[in-house]
Parts: sequence; structure tokens; C-alpha cells
Amino acid sequence: MKERHSYREGLTLEEAVACVTDITEPVRDVEWVKLSDCLGRILAQDMEAQFDNPPFDRSPVDGYACRAADTKGADRNHPVLLKVVEEIDAGQYSEREIRPGEAVRIMTGAAIPAGCDCCLRQESTNYGESTVEIYEEVSVHDNYCDRGEDFKAGTQMMKAGEKLGYIETGNLAGMGCEKVPVYRRPRIALITTGDEVTLPGTPLLPGRIYNSNRFLLEARLKELGCEAMWVESTGDDAMKVAEQVKRAADRGADLILTTGGVSVGKKDILHEALPLLGAVKLFWRVRLKPGTPTICSLYHGIPVISLSGNPFGAITNLELLVRPMLARLTNDPSLQVQVVSGIMESSFPKESRGRRFIRAIYGGGKVCLPDGLHSSGVLSSMKGCNCLVDIAPGTKALAPGDQVRVWLL
Amino acid sequence: MKERHSYREGLTLEEAVACVTDITEPVRDVEWVKLSDCLGRILAQDMEAQFDNPPFDRSPVDGYACRAADTKGADRNHPVLLKVVEEIDAGQYSEREIRPGEAVRIMTGAAIPAGCDCCLRQESTNYGESTVEIYEEVSVHDNYCDRGEDFKAGTQMMKAGEKLGYIETGNLAGMGCEKVPVYRRPRIALITTGDEVTLPGTPLLPGRIYNSNRFLLEARLKELGCEAMWVESTGDDAMKVAEQVKRAADRGADLILTTGGVSVGKKDILHEALPLLGAVKLFWRVRLKPGTPTICSLYHGIPVISLSGNPFGAITNLELLVRPMLARLTNDPSLQVQVVSGIMESSFPKESRGRRFIRAIYGGGKVCLPDGLHSSGVLSSMKGCNCLVDIAPGTKALAPGDQVRVWLL
Repeated sequence: MKERHSYREGLTLEEAVACVTDITEPVRDVEWVKLSDCLGRILAQDMEAQFDNPPFDRSPVDGYACRAADTKGADRNHPVLLKVVEEIDAGQYSEREIRPGEAVRIMTGAAIPAGCDCCLRQESTNYGESTVEIYEEVSVHDNYCDRGEDFKAGTQMMKAGEKLGYIETGNLAGMGCEKVPVYRRPRIALITTGDEVTLPGTPLLPGRIYNSNRFLLEARLKELGCEAMWVESTGDDAMKVAEQVKRAADRGADLILTTGGVSVGKKDILHEALPLLGAVKLFWRVRLKPGTPTICSLYHGIPVISLSGNPFGAITNLELLVRPMLARLTNDPSLQVQVVSGIMESSFPKESRGRRFIRAIYGGGKVCLPDGLHSSGVLSSMKGCNCLVDIAPGTKALAPGDQVRVWLL
Repeated sequence: MKERHSYREGLTLEEAVACVTDITEPVRDVEWVKLSDCLGRILAQDMEAQFDNPPFDRSPVDGYACRAADTKGADRNHPVLLKVVEEIDAGQYSEREIRPGEAVRIMTGAAIPAGCDCCLRQESTNYGESTVEIYEEVSVHDNYCDRGEDFKAGTQMMKAGEKLGYIETGNLAGMGCEKVPVYRRPRIALITTGDEVTLPGTPLLPGRIYNSNRFLLEARLKELGCEAMWVESTGDDAMKVAEQVKRAADRGADLILTTGGVSVGKKDILHEALPLLGAVKLFWRVRLKPGTPTICSLYHGIPVISLSGNPFGAITNLELLVRPMLARLTNDPSLQVQVVSGIMESSFPKESRGRRFIRAIYGGGKVCLPDGLHSSGVLSSMKGCNCLVDIAPGTKALAPGDQVRVWLL
């Protein structure tokens, strides 16, 4: 946190994003992970090649290495005869210097010995063992891969902050790296609340629903590469929620997410739980639908984002508010939601007095709305959706052909 | 395998893909995984909702539920007084039927009791405990969410073959699924060979290079969601390679990948290892560069794809030949490489007598070539590349403005 924040209510989304970004410090702890575990991680140091790769000139063919000058005029009718002084397989290395009139039998990937300046495919020879007939004239550097053709000692191969994909992993292997310095993954805790929510696999009592938020958000965090380390569910009990938040903090959480209990009802117990902990509330209510009553607070310097209990409210605010935090925590800017322009192909007849985000399907610049209800409590109609349409305050309705801002999920 | 295959050499890529697809059977074994582990898996059964969700009419607001008729004419100056007969929090359920002149205090998400046909926000009342003053006239179904608004019993929510993302995970949770039937992941073995390759972390002896294929391919399989269960490296020893292939088969591998030893040299030991096992060779050599000498064989009915030892040859053939197999094994057609059209922005001056694939960067319909060498043994220049340009046989050169087929990685 760069400065003390005063409490605010009813922020714009942009103000809320600025606030949560400001209180989120990138994780700078470095850990060395095994090369086979580095995929998707963010590199914490610049990586410089320590040697030329390959560390020797090598043959790209199975055949013979020799001096190009010795092959002058060779063809099937006028073979050149060379003395085969050695055989070098891939993985072997010869200190011997090859003289004029000599050749070595050489396999793909093997180190070309000193004195040779070209290689011949075996198909251009009689495959001789002690002497070999050469049927082709070749030039200096024909079939010849230079030492360092992949990379040279001292080359900066990767920079701190790069995300490691399969190509980087392969390159790090080629550089001989057994372990890779990467930023520690952020430790994220997810605490869902609500007396009405029941874990799947448990019988559903009257008045109850199953806890979709827990699994929805847990899966989304995982999909974004930010697996929650700690996932808990509690009833509407301020003490229990406070206890879970404290335990997450004690375990070193970098970010604590809660769902439910943030509105104005008697059971909106986050308003009670956060003061119980002595957490500093930074804002409540963001001027957008769904998920208006989001609370942002700091507990011992750890950001706590308390999301709506409505699944669509929770997931939308995860995308809009929490992803900028994840991008910062992980040092991975690609976690920021991308915003593009799109043309509506469906109607949305409802008036939006305030700013509203609705679920939609984006493809090739066009935006369709899914079948099913847009209600915050409805998750089923999100199936197939890959974006949120950002509807400006005061919009009467959206009609086909309207240009809209689209947040890609 | 649908029919007996005869051995072929020098197939086109399309013939090779048809062959490998033909010998690859989709994994149909079903396993039930915990909901929190289902992300990215392929659903093995249709999923039908067993109950309405929510299973009751519910309030989307904190306030009061009553009969709309009772609020007729109410405003701040003419409040209607109702008797508060009960309080219902989320998670509670009342059997009581509400009569005219009565109201219940109700919280967001709570079940609306019989007799009520609307809810009022508490801001439109005096928050009364035993009686409440109503300041707003509301209509039937105002602030009222119907039972089953998310989904109704009997709705087919998902079909077998769908890939489970975060939304599906959330929906399965809402449906009360504790475990989910998904297809078993294919068991893939990866065996890299070569006397010249050394594991990172080991000192590099003269003539040796580090094993990039192992980590490159392992990471790529993981990135595609097809983690290799079994990764081994051997030297150029046909018996040892044969032993590893046999062990992978004994462990139930669905697909065995090897790298190296497939060309025409003395140490191209796959030609020896496969017959040692009694494997049936289906093809050798595909008419494309890089990675021409790929071998396809069947060992006890298990496809064995033996890729080039050159990193670019290995990874290109993984994309072109093995991905169609992965798509089939996993029941996930999205693993197929997508082919699009692009316009070259760079030159590629080299003549392509046969079909050639080169690494490139695709974006917005345009194709750029990376800096660095295109040699098969060079991996470093793949950094930033996200596609392969498919160059037709007999192409003299590619120039800016040329239209090309692009395989997106």
C-alpha cells in the first residue's frame, strides 16, 4: 500500500481497480523449481547462455566428414578415394586432426573433428569402412552446422518476468538448467459463506442450495493458473468467518477472497466479521451490476476482497476486480482481462440505469447473448459465454448493430 | 485398428495422419473424479438436472415478503401496515402460509413462504420487527425469483464429450454433483534416446549436448492437457530402448513417443529396437521437412510414434502427427491444430523442393518469421513463435504478400 487509503463507498469500477491494484504488491519471493515443473511460471531472473550450443561443430547428416578440397571433381564415374581414419558417433568426440586425403565416418549430431570443413551424406559414397569412395563434389561448409548455431555463450536467452511455455522449457533444457528461478505463486485463500449453501454430495435440506461459488471460483482461479491454496466454507457466522480469514492470513495468504454476506441484510455478516478482525475497510459497493456490494479491506496488510454471494456477481467481480490483482501478484500481465469492441447481434431490452455487465458470446467481432436468464443468481446461462458486455449507465436497451465494449474472459 | 495396415514409406502428411488416426482408439474408460479435480476433463456421460434450482421461490432482496395486493396505494405519506409473522433467513424454510395483512421479514436468498407473491426491499419500509410500514406499492412477482430459474429438473445440462471449464464446474456444483464421470486421461510415455544427450544438471562432456527434447515435449504435452505419465531417456542402445517401450506398454500406455534414432545412420537404433520387440512398422518417412524420418509402429496394438531427434523436427511432428492422435485419445477435438490463411510479412528465400514447415509468428492474419536460424537443430529461434507455415513442394521462395497456410500451435 503506497499511501493510507480513506474509506469510500460507491466507487466506479476504475476507482475500485485503482484501489485494489494499489494495495496489491507483486510477489517477489523467488523459488527454484525443477525444469519439468516450470511450465506456466514467471521467470524471476534474466537467463544468459553459459556456453555455445551445440558446443562443437556438428554433422547434420549420416555420412563422412572431410576436406571439401578433396572432393573436387568427384562423381559416380570419377570417385575420389579417401582413407577412413575414424568413426565418430553422436556423443563421441575426437581430438584427432584430419589431414588431406582422410575422412571420418560420422553420424548425425556428432562433433566434426578438426581439419574437416564439410560433411557428405552416406548416399553420396560407397559406405566404405577403411576407405571410402566419394561420388559428389561438395563445398566448404556443406552439411555443416556451426558450433553455437542454436545459441552462443553470453546471449541473453530470457528476461525476468517472462512466462515459461514449452519452448522456453526446451531452451532452458538446452542451456543445461536443472532448476529454474521463478516467482513464488501467490497464496490465495477462498472462503465461501452462507447458511443456505450446502456442499455437493450432502443431502439438500429445505431452503438450501448447493455451493456453486466455491467450485466456480476455485476452478476459475485454477484455469487462470492461480490455484487457491486454501478453500473453506462457513455458515453465516461472523466469528467463524473471522477465524477463517485469520487462519488464511496466518498461513501466509497473499490475497483472501470471500463470497456472500456483503449486502445490507441482517445476515450480511462480513460487515461484522471484518471489524472483529480489526481489518481496515477501504471500500464498499462498486457502481456496477452484478455484484455491487463488493467490499475491499486490508487485514494485516493482506487484501481481502469480499464478493457477492450471487454466482454471477461473484464471478463477474472476480474477472473485473480480482484479475488485475492476480496479474500484479503473479507478475503476469497477461492475466489482465482484454477489452475489445464488438457489434451486438442480439437485443438486451432491459434498461440499465447504472453500469451493467452481462454475459455474452464473442466471436469475430460479433456479440450474441445466451439463451436463459441474465439474473445474478443464474449460472446455467453462462455456459458457452466467453465475455462480458459493458453496458454504460443510462442505456435504454441494446439492439442488434449496437457497438459495445466487450471484456474477454 | 480398423484393418490390417501394410508397411509404407514416404507418405504424405495427410496419409500419415489418416494412418495414425486409424490406429488410435479413443479412451473410453470412465473415472469419477472429485468436482474440484474435473477442470479440463472430458465429460463421459450426459448430465441431467435432478431437481429445480433453486428448489424454492426465493427473495433477491433483503426486506419483506407479502401479498402485492396488500401494498396497493402505499407510499411514504400513506404507509400500509402489515403484521410481521416470521423472519426467514437464507437457509431457513417456513411451512407457514402467509395470509392477507401479513408479511415475513426475509433475507436475500431465503425461501419465500406460501401465500406471498412479491418481496419489498427493506429501504421501502421502516424495518419494523413486529409490524412493518410499507412505503411502496409493488406488483405481483416484483423482487421475486422463481423456483427453477437457474435450471429445472430434467434439463440436460451437459453432454458427454464436453470439456469441463469453470462454468461447467460451477453448474455441476449447483446440481449437487460431488463426483463427475470423465474419460480417463490417456497414458502417454515419452522416451528420448541418444548417446549425445545429457540431462540438465549433469556436466556436459565433449561431444555432448543437453537433452532439450525431453523437456520440450513433456512441457508441450502438459500444456495440451496430456501430461506424460512416464518419461525416460536412454542412450543409443536398441535393447534398452526396446525395454523402455515394453515397460511403458506393461504399464498400460495408450501412446508411446520416442525421439531420435530414426534416420539412416548406424546409430539409428529404432530400426533395430522395434523389430526386437516384434512391433509392426506401419510407416517410415513422411514427405515433409523437418522430421522426415518419423516412424509409426504398433506394439501389442499400442501406437508407437518415433520422432526425429532434432528438436524442431520432434516438436513439428508432435504438432502435425501426434496432436490428431491426442485429440482422438482424449475425446477432445479441440486438440486438433487449427489451420488458417495468412499473408507473409517476411521473406523466406530458401527453395523447398519437398513440403516444408517453418516456424513463424501469426497475428491478425499476418505472418512474420523470427530472427535466427530455421535449422532443425535450432530451438532458440522458436521463442515467440505460435505457428508453422506450410510451404508447398516446389516453392522457390516466400516473399512478403504471399498467401500461406498457417498451422496455429
